[in-house]
Amino acid sequence: MKRIMLRVAYDGTEYCGWQRQPNGITVEGVLNHKLSALLKEEIEVVGASRTDAGVHARGNVCVFDTNSRIPGEKFAHALNPLLPGDITVQESSEVAADFHPRYCAINKTYEYWIYNATFPDPLLRRYTHFLYRPLDVAAMQQAAGYLIGEHDFKSFCSVNTQVKETVRKVNILEVLEEGVAPFGGGVAKISDRPRLITIRINGNGFLYNMVRIIAGTLIEVGYHRRGQESLVGTLAACDRQAAGATAPACGLTLVGIQYNGALKEGS
Amino acid sequence: MKRIMLRVAYDGTEYCGWQRQPNGITVEGVLNHKLSALLKEEIEVVGASRTDAGVHARGNVCVFDTNSRIPGEKFAHALNPLLPGDITVQESSEVAADFHPRYCAINKTYEYWIYNATFPDPLLRRYTHFLYRPLDVAAMQQAAGYLIGEHDFKSFCSVNTQVKETVRKVNILEVLEEGVAPFGGGVAKISDRPRLITIRINGNGFLYNMVRIIAGTLIEVGYHRRGQESLVGTLAACDRQAAGATAPACGLTLVGIQYNGALKEGS
Repeated sequence: MKRIMLRVAYDGTEYCGWQRQPNGITVEGVLNHKLSALLKEEIEVVGASRTDAGVHARGNVCVFDTNSRIPGEKFAHALNPLLPGDITVQESSEVAADFHPRYCAINKTYEYWIYNATFPDPLLRRYTHFLYRPLDVAAMQQAAGYLIGEHDFKSFCSVNTQVKETVRKVNILEVLEEGVAPFGGGVAKISDRPRLITIRINGNGFLYNMVRIIAGTLIEVGYHRRGQESLVGTLAACDRQAAGATAPACGLTLVGIQYNGALKEGS
Repeated sequence: MKRIMLRVAYDGTEYCGWQRQPNGITVEGVLNHKLSALLKEEIEVVGASRTDAGVHARGNVCVFDTNSRIPGEKFAHALNPLLPGDITVQESSEVAADFHPRYCAINKTYEYWIYNATFPDPLLRRYTHFLYRPLDVAAMQQAAGYLIGEHDFKSFCSVNTQVKETVRKVNILEVLEEGVAPFGGGVAKISDRPRLITIRINGNGFLYNMVRIIAGTLIEVGYHRRGQESLVGTLAACDRQAAGATAPACGLTLVGIQYNGALKEGS
């Protein structure tokens, strides 16, 4: 028996999220089904992050135990031909029997992508949240600074959760503005003012909907509906009502998860 | 009666190309249907470029004549809410009654995107051609240079066409290599060697499948299946057999069309 780790990328558009559920197709469900078919064993993966319906990933991580003699690094090659095009294993390896993708995670990185332009771009629509009115990115950048560090993020946690401990540490929270290069840098600029705004966040853990609530709150700052400094009070309130709306799932991507000695992402 | 020009962007994945046809949904068919519904007139658009099934566009152009009193620049706003998410009008305006989007076009720009990595990326899969083995981009760049200028491109024209005049002028043909930044520059690098390779081409006209055959031929150069200088002979042969395979449609995007005094693209 050995434990195999998979780093999984997916376009979440067509899925009811990561976690297996009775009604609706999920990423976890597809992986269990295809791994069981491949290995002729009953496989149930254990995932690091239960991403919501519509959320994407470049580096979600899961493990499973198997008696298979396939070498760890070959599982990606064996499994990918069985998977639909919107799920791909980017990397596989054998890990220690006590490695747990959730409990052993040190930091996670998410990105929230906003397409800020006159009209939506069909080629970006699946992966970005479209906003028409120009955002004040400088204000968003300044506001983001107040959330960096160890804080009680209860205000940024969906009330649909029973989690008790709401202190988390945010290491990086940056708001990046780029001319739109749909794929790669600066190749095509497609209208007067298209901008891709990336909210990039790295932290030691995230409460339910935390990144999307932070994104929604920063968007309100970008529209001057709340001041930059108001985020200090939002944190202190420890009340979901004090923060902004939850931004839509389609803009969110789990970029990667960092483990001791192993960075399960590319950057 | 006035003539309205639309600059149209679309994700071609789900369409049987631009041109209306009896079986299968096309971009032109959707535009005709939605414009007719909006204006309560029978509208038939005339397009600049009949992109193939699966090919994308950021700046295809079409016109139609209407008695509507909607101001030209407002058509984009009026039409977009009726369109599916994978087709968006990026710009609309009133043009001269004799403006023809195909005959008045001066230059067109296409991009062919190749994702060169160990495994496909689900978030790029709809818009890129995935290739596993590393391409020699420097060889591709050198080979591309031989195609720039006015040449008889008969070798790069699908035999499924009756076009007689096969001389075209290529103004720009460049092969750009970037670390993969899925959206925008350099934010995430997702595995050891993912690269986005963009073949960007601008010319005064393109034969049927010309860009995809050029891309397929440059890919063969990138794999050292043919030498860089061999493209001189490929051109001289005036024979489709002399060129490489037609690269898949999914990697191709019509970036924009240039008109006298009006650049119907963003770059």
